[in-house]
Amino acid sequence: MQSISLYTVYFENEIGNYSFPNSPENLYEPLKYFIEIGGKRIRPLLTLIASEMFGLPKENALQASLAIELFHNFSLIHDDIMDKAPLRRGKQTVHLKWNDDIAILSGDVLLIKAYQALAKQDARHIPALLDLFNRTAVEVCEGQQMDMDFETCDQVTIEAYIEMIRLKTSVLLGCALAFGAIVSDAPKKDRELIYAFGQNLGIAFQIQDDILDLYGDPEKFGKQIGGDIIANKKTLLLLKALELAQINPESKVEEMLLIQDNKVKIDTAKSMFDSLGVLSFAREQMSIYQDKALSALNDISVSTENKKTLIALSEYLFLREV
Amino acid sequence: MQSISLYTVYFENEIGNYSFPNSPENLYEPLKYFIEIGGKRIRPLLTLIASEMFGLPKENALQASLAIELFHNFSLIHDDIMDKAPLRRGKQTVHLKWNDDIAILSGDVLLIKAYQALAKQDARHIPALLDLFNRTAVEVCEGQQMDMDFETCDQVTIEAYIEMIRLKTSVLLGCALAFGAIVSDAPKKDRELIYAFGQNLGIAFQIQDDILDLYGDPEKFGKQIGGDIIANKKTLLLLKALELAQINPESKVEEMLLIQDNKVKIDTAKSMFDSLGVLSFAREQMSIYQDKALSALNDISVSTENKKTLIALSEYLFLREV
Repeated sequence: MQSISLYTVYFENEIGNYSFPNSPENLYEPLKYFIEIGGKRIRPLLTLIASEMFGLPKENALQASLAIELFHNFSLIHDDIMDKAPLRRGKQTVHLKWNDDIAILSGDVLLIKAYQALAKQDARHIPALLDLFNRTAVEVCEGQQMDMDFETCDQVTIEAYIEMIRLKTSVLLGCALAFGAIVSDAPKKDRELIYAFGQNLGIAFQIQDDILDLYGDPEKFGKQIGGDIIANKKTLLLLKALELAQINPESKVEEMLLIQDNKVKIDTAKSMFDSLGVLSFAREQMSIYQDKALSALNDISVSTENKKTLIALSEYLFLREV
Repeated sequence: MQSISLYTVYFENEIGNYSFPNSPENLYEPLKYFIEIGGKRIRPLLTLIASEMFGLPKENALQASLAIELFHNFSLIHDDIMDKAPLRRGKQTVHLKWNDDIAILSGDVLLIKAYQALAKQDARHIPALLDLFNRTAVEVCEGQQMDMDFETCDQVTIEAYIEMIRLKTSVLLGCALAFGAIVSDAPKKDRELIYAFGQNLGIAFQIQDDILDLYGDPEKFGKQIGGDIIANKKTLLLLKALELAQINPESKVEEMLLIQDNKVKIDTAKSMFDSLGVLSFAREQMSIYQDKALSALNDISVSTENKKTLIALSEYLFLREV
């Protein structure tokens, strides 16, 4: 077992060496900028860790891991346009620093560059990698569309919400891990299990994010606390609260959404969600998906020793107090 | 040799059967709409014709031809956003009929769907198809970026302009034809020759388009005559005129660009380009690339009989009087 930081150092070094052409400058400068501002690189790490877990040196899975990271960055650049986001990882988004047209086109190129990285893996693995990548990429777009649709949709069920986060964020974690299995020629069953591990871990992580947005420690969370509830964003918490409000009209969830003062709104939401049992519901949901993830990991036919890095990584992802 | 219309009927039928999922509706409805409004389908036809020219039934090249057409439509949807185009093929563009966000995201999915079609070809051809497709897709984006950059660039050389149209439109024709060669296991040399045929044909066609915009017969051209010069668009004609104006300051090209009355401007441009020799220069350039194309086609190691459909297609493309 290698420590997570070893994988991080390796990947940061490799992506640091990844180079874009110089021209046209307006196409490639935004990409250099965006890749450099970084992020946690969790997804490519999953590919590298999975590949070594199944016995293949991480170096042989590098291009597949780059494909995942480039794809992820493509989706962020385009999502930022749609979400009109001014900042990403504390820096100006591409569409603001340049403009929408440049963000569209450089995003497009980045998606193609992801396929270009994938094409550098062994030819015999390419059909399987390509199939999974295509399916995943379509799903990520479907998830983003559902997310946008939810903004203007009166009734979003918990089920639809979980499906949205599964598509928008979790399938890519499954894909990243399954890439490691594919390039290592792991058995089909293990490939499915590691995909399931990633997907369920992703859903649990996203639910954790919803909880932390309201209940997190501002120091540890790294984002403004209560941002979701201030924006009346349909998180798992709010959706559950709205669902309960239909049975219990006394609960005044709708009134809470109209509160103008941010601090009062956050405090009201917190105590309301507590008393309605919304927080415990969300924690329960998170546990369910964590358990599913760990159960899939447990069933994979490699030694426990070899699973340790992935276990450490999932513990790291859930370290933030919930 | 099969007639072009046989290929068209076959492809129209197949793309008519191509189906998108129903949900999310905002993601897939725009794509159904856009694919249905059609177009000449020249690019996928090239793949099918090339495949049969090299001895493989067109049915076996269908997915590769679909990939080309889906990619082409993706690039149109995104280009239309950047160009703020209200109409495409006489119908409302996706970004106007829906909105920019939907046009971005459904365009993204369409690009992925192109890769998904490609992945359905024989596994042994996928690495070669993928390599060429990736390279071409990147080039098309680079061409689009150059085209946008040229709008605000004072000095665009003829050479840079030809490079822009090569990337933006011609490499995809080369790729479409080379796809037919790859899936038919044609020799490498022939694959390169048919690519060169397509690329040069594309450049010649684009130059013809520049000429027809000003000198075409409105009935045959199908677009408003003079649209380019009214918008002071940097076509081959205008760039050559501006180049000549630097040597011959009497030529008053800059003054012509300021004319407000469209009819007067068109007539002035026409007689100015005639007398400056700009029209004959453009015709000459067009011939050069046509000759290059036909010479490459000539060198391909299949019988002249088998080349007849491609020859007919190139004649069809240049039928419009120049």
